[in-house]
Amino acid sequence: MRKHIFNAGPCVLADVVRENTAKAVIELGNSGQSIMEVSHRSKDFEPIIKEAADLLKEILNIPEGYSVLFLGGGASLQFAMVPFNFLNTKAAYLNTGTWASGAIKEARLFGEVQVLASSEDKNFNYYPKGYTIPTDVDYFHITTNNTIYGTEILRDIDSPVPLIADMSSDILSRPVDVSKYDLIYAGAQKNMGPAGVTVVIIKNEFLERVTRTNIPTMLKYRVHVENGSMKNTPPCTAIFTVREVLRWVKSIGGVREMDRRAQAKADLLYHAIDSSKLFVGTVAKEDRSRMNICFVMKEGYKDKEADFIAFAGTKGVIGIKGHRSVGGFRASCYNALDIASVQVLVDAMAEYEKSIL
Amino acid sequence: MRKHIFNAGPCVLADVVRENTAKAVIELGNSGQSIMEVSHRSKDFEPIIKEAADLLKEILNIPEGYSVLFLGGGASLQFAMVPFNFLNTKAAYLNTGTWASGAIKEARLFGEVQVLASSEDKNFNYYPKGYTIPTDVDYFHITTNNTIYGTEILRDIDSPVPLIADMSSDILSRPVDVSKYDLIYAGAQKNMGPAGVTVVIIKNEFLERVTRTNIPTMLKYRVHVENGSMKNTPPCTAIFTVREVLRWVKSIGGVREMDRRAQAKADLLYHAIDSSKLFVGTVAKEDRSRMNICFVMKEGYKDKEADFIAFAGTKGVIGIKGHRSVGGFRASCYNALDIASVQVLVDAMAEYEKSIL
Repeated sequence: MRKHIFNAGPCVLADVVRENTAKAVIELGNSGQSIMEVSHRSKDFEPIIKEAADLLKEILNIPEGYSVLFLGGGASLQFAMVPFNFLNTKAAYLNTGTWASGAIKEARLFGEVQVLASSEDKNFNYYPKGYTIPTDVDYFHITTNNTIYGTEILRDIDSPVPLIADMSSDILSRPVDVSKYDLIYAGAQKNMGPAGVTVVIIKNEFLERVTRTNIPTMLKYRVHVENGSMKNTPPCTAIFTVREVLRWVKSIGGVREMDRRAQAKADLLYHAIDSSKLFVGTVAKEDRSRMNICFVMKEGYKDKEADFIAFAGTKGVIGIKGHRSVGGFRASCYNALDIASVQVLVDAMAEYEKSIL
Repeated sequence: MRKHIFNAGPCVLADVVRENTAKAVIELGNSGQSIMEVSHRSKDFEPIIKEAADLLKEILNIPEGYSVLFLGGGASLQFAMVPFNFLNTKAAYLNTGTWASGAIKEARLFGEVQVLASSEDKNFNYYPKGYTIPTDVDYFHITTNNTIYGTEILRDIDSPVPLIADMSSDILSRPVDVSKYDLIYAGAQKNMGPAGVTVVIIKNEFLERVTRTNIPTMLKYRVHVENGSMKNTPPCTAIFTVREVLRWVKSIGGVREMDRRAQAKADLLYHAIDSSKLFVGTVAKEDRSRMNICFVMKEGYKDKEADFIAFAGTKGVIGIKGHRSVGGFRASCYNALDIASVQVLVDAMAEYEKSIL
């Protein structure tokens, strides 16, 4: 039986995406070959990667002068690629959680890193504010949504220096003003597809800032831009699925509709948490993520957390165990999660609460 | 209609591999989730990556003390990872083609490179011999099969220094004495699965040779060994398919049977080429690849090459156009290509030859 999938990533995909991928794994159209078998340099595959890039440009309203790349290695490889290409002397970072910390660690291998603000003092349960972005840095790096701690910025900030954003866990969940960013990257396995491909949106002009001459070929953004993500064999099957996800997003109304749905799901679940006598949120209300909703049981009931996970499991709810850094629960409500699944979780919370209070 | 797929990679996969992947894309076992949706840190996925590693160890008879990794980024990323980790002062390389040249180019970013021998003088149409491996280098790097030019070494050489091999296009096609290598890497999209995952077999002791302290986290072999390829989200779906390929290889007799089949297919096609009045091989006979069989039309008939590709197409044969560096034809006969497909090609060659001579 199909589960209610609250996984933090990889995570739930729309039925049509799974079905079309499965079909293509057997045979891609009438090509006589599987999507796993077709040459990446063929009339079978080239239109797929082109359509995926074009759809992303359309859906996110990406201005002229930007390139869309599909790379392997995960967002974590971007943590190093960004400074390898663009950190010439100094860069500014915001430390908003585990992945932001990871990006900072990699940047320090390449130059000076100024951490403008950090929410580590409160176990990353808020999004830092009131910092000033210096003008003498090569770029400013942010993580727009923090998957583990459940905070999200939900707006496009103005930066006097090139702005780089890891949007792995909230891309495509709202309209974004891409013109404010010089580089956006996102592992696909939340809102965009399966694990195994990372999307990069890069302003072509930004490539001119690269001065290092010792960058390995596969870590050079310019190489990937010039080769249309095909310097080597790209992860073709994962890119096919990304195209299916983008077709699906477009078909149901694009990022405006995703935004509306994300808000509705988050409102439903946060309301349940806030009105509960048993459950309590872990994140400052104004910084709450709509993608990863973190909560715990109130003091005195902590020993029931595992029991509730098992109880929710009997309702078909999976993936709600919180990350070990936070504990409790994390319900990830990505684009493809239906609000009906959130209702199942909310009902389970109410039923469980009634049973023990 | 199913084609006869001679693609150089991505390439043909066994029916059972496509079918089981398609099923898992809809639902992985009875998990209520797709293989694209399951958490990589779950009881649904962890046994899959473990089984894949264990099967590879069993099939290739990998000795104790080696680790098997599943990484993103393609074999081309290994071109940089190898020297980033292991080139402390000087390394030796064999230049046997485009990909070997690519590996050499990356190594030069990290230290001195001694190219022991090159077959570039004859457009890489032979495998160099008679070189001496120096003992004062950090490692010796070879490419066992050259996909573009169609040469292959087909034996495990003895090296006085750590031996590193790019086996992207012939791994699993014959028994290999893994104990002779300190590191083997291979993009999966030839004999092992779909594009999007690269397999690394590394001797754990070799990790102790790493002295550089500025290696990005995702490029450190040690990090991937210590985290069981799960430092970040691995390409789960591609790894699932690799497991299916390994199950299939094991089920039909392992690498001994693959070796026998590779020889039978190569014998059939090379015999057809050698006995033809129209077609001629491009590679020195003793160095001919069994994986990528390159040939052209004899002088005077070059203008018929495109016509033959179209003619073979009418028989369901695809992917035989030679790489632009060589021209003519390249029939890639990877593990999952049935000998019946080779017979179709051989028959098409004979029929075409008869029609124009």
